[in-house]
Amino acid sequence: MKRRQFFKGAAVAAGASTLAAPAIAQSEPTIRWRCVSSFPKNIDVLYGSAEVMAKNVAEATDGKFQIQVFAAGEVVPALQALDAASNDTVEMCHTASYYYVGKDPAFAFGCCLPFGLNTRQQNAWFYHGEGGKLLEEFYAGYNLKALAGGNTGAQMGGWFRSEIKSVEDLKGLKFRISGLGGQILSKLGVVAQQIGGGDIYPALERGTIDAAEFNGPYDDEKLGLYKIAPYYYYPGWWDGTSLQHFFINTNRWNSLPKHYQAALTAGAALANVDSVARYDVLNPAALKRVVANGAKLRAFPQDVLQASHKAAMDLYDELADKTPAFKKRYESYRRFQNDSNLWLQASDYAYDSATLRLTRR
Amino acid sequence: MKRRQFFKGAAVAAGASTLAAPAIAQSEPTIRWRCVSSFPKNIDVLYGSAEVMAKNVAEATDGKFQIQVFAAGEVVPALQALDAASNDTVEMCHTASYYYVGKDPAFAFGCCLPFGLNTRQQNAWFYHGEGGKLLEEFYAGYNLKALAGGNTGAQMGGWFRSEIKSVEDLKGLKFRISGLGGQILSKLGVVAQQIGGGDIYPALERGTIDAAEFNGPYDDEKLGLYKIAPYYYYPGWWDGTSLQHFFINTNRWNSLPKHYQAALTAGAALANVDSVARYDVLNPAALKRVVANGAKLRAFPQDVLQASHKAAMDLYDELADKTPAFKKRYESYRRFQNDSNLWLQASDYAYDSATLRLTRR
Repeated sequence: MKRRQFFKGAAVAAGASTLAAPAIAQSEPTIRWRCVSSFPKNIDVLYGSAEVMAKNVAEATDGKFQIQVFAAGEVVPALQALDAASNDTVEMCHTASYYYVGKDPAFAFGCCLPFGLNTRQQNAWFYHGEGGKLLEEFYAGYNLKALAGGNTGAQMGGWFRSEIKSVEDLKGLKFRISGLGGQILSKLGVVAQQIGGGDIYPALERGTIDAAEFNGPYDDEKLGLYKIAPYYYYPGWWDGTSLQHFFINTNRWNSLPKHYQAALTAGAALANVDSVARYDVLNPAALKRVVANGAKLRAFPQDVLQASHKAAMDLYDELADKTPAFKKRYESYRRFQNDSNLWLQASDYAYDSATLRLTRR
Repeated sequence: MKRRQFFKGAAVAAGASTLAAPAIAQSEPTIRWRCVSSFPKNIDVLYGSAEVMAKNVAEATDGKFQIQVFAAGEVVPALQALDAASNDTVEMCHTASYYYVGKDPAFAFGCCLPFGLNTRQQNAWFYHGEGGKLLEEFYAGYNLKALAGGNTGAQMGGWFRSEIKSVEDLKGLKFRISGLGGQILSKLGVVAQQIGGGDIYPALERGTIDAAEFNGPYDDEKLGLYKIAPYYYYPGWWDGTSLQHFFINTNRWNSLPKHYQAALTAGAALANVDSVARYDVLNPAALKRVVANGAKLRAFPQDVLQASHKAAMDLYDELADKTPAFKKRYESYRRFQNDSNLWLQASDYAYDSATLRLTRR
């Protein structure tokens, strides 16, 4: 059904008293796990999601299932968190699936695709749509069980030293952006750069790069980029949602008592809803502060969005052609997005449109 | 800061082996609770949220903390669920706070206000904004502890036998709608009617009423209203979100072992994120089906939205003037909405606008 027809009108350490109560000791083993995070402690909401999960799991099991969280770099480098859980260096990790698109582009589907599902849609496809099974099957190939565990919501489009007035201004632009977003923008002449968060400020200051994207205002503010690259663009179409996961080594998951699996499942869900709520409280206040400090908010010009969207669709066709794992998930993802977007226009998008328009002062 | 300046450019029965292992028996008591739902079993997602919570809590406590869920009417009538938990008839309930605005209009804030926060904003204000404390204090007056536990997302505006072409068409319209939405529409001449879900179809068929709102397409479809009132309006501005809660008798909550409190907290969060995801998978498919069966999708005319919004703001001013509990929460709610809507326009709303525009075919 076409939209126009559709719409009309506008490590297990055994413990406890095994002699006195063997049955109870067997069902309530003391277990200590390590969870390596891809996030540093100063990116406190992203890092904190794993702490929220671990605290709840420890409390819910009366201290018997303890998960210790390690920040990026403490046990393994940030972008090797998934490998560490996969190869049983640690029992589990907290990371963003799309950091691993270099292994297989299908890793993007767990986290986000540029111009893809929004935050609610991503949860829906993962928890109750075809995405759950399609990703379970994919991750099993890496010896991993996945639980959704945090999200930033839609991010910003980053900081630019000069205004972007049209797609022409992207040619030769040295932009700190990685992943599929970087590949898409490369098709439009952008020189995509990969630089660690702590090195962004000096690179912008020296002119090594012209622009940098990071996250939303709350995390971006910490980097102070408004001082040297004041044009702050939206929307961050390559990060319209950014779902993080807890990835658990499959053998470790299977050896876990069923009730600890249930506690971990619920603790991850708590982390998922909690992190979005934290960002949704912190980002509005931070946006006001960075604007007060000189950030100049700009919407990406329509021709930039159009050209970027076309380049994205071209890239997905290329990836589907050469990567079976990508193709299989992409078909389901695209179908779900089409149906979901019809509903979105009658539901939350229509509601937001009305409230935003009516409350403008 | 005004929006125009801000934006530039283009949005517990003790049991177990007390003799053999007293310490363990004390910390792992067998507890059986009753949770009365305001929802019937055939409204399966709303009713099911309590089952999702109860199943996870039982699993996470290895079967020791059992919560039995009762559908509306099985123990107490649907709209007395909150009272039953408050007066300790049962330990807890699952309901929508705004069913109780007759006791105090401040009960609306836990669930939704017409033209108020959307689903993510409502979670944010409740989990991490001022709303959490303001509502904790309010509910404590009713001897209740609240945990967020389910949401429908933005609902539809209901089924109408005739088209609504302007605000004039609302005069004398007999509309099945309750709560604050009904009070607001009464200011515009609507005759608000309260009719149980099962009586809507015959009332529309006989012409006792001209229109009826219920929920979103997945639940609406079950009532078959497209056959007799085909004009299906959006957005449901009185239910732009609809957050359900688990309300637990405060004394029962306080007497619960800490780890069962933690399990219940996480189980409720799981139900919260899970129910939204279920609706977000089920509603798109149902919307397509009801349209295929003859439903005619219509957006409310702009003058209807404007007049309704003005009537809503007038009502809130009246309620704040005469109800201290409403006033205190309204000020925080409004402030949060204003800040959050600025951020919304640069983040998810801008992202949704771009993807919806670029993927239209």
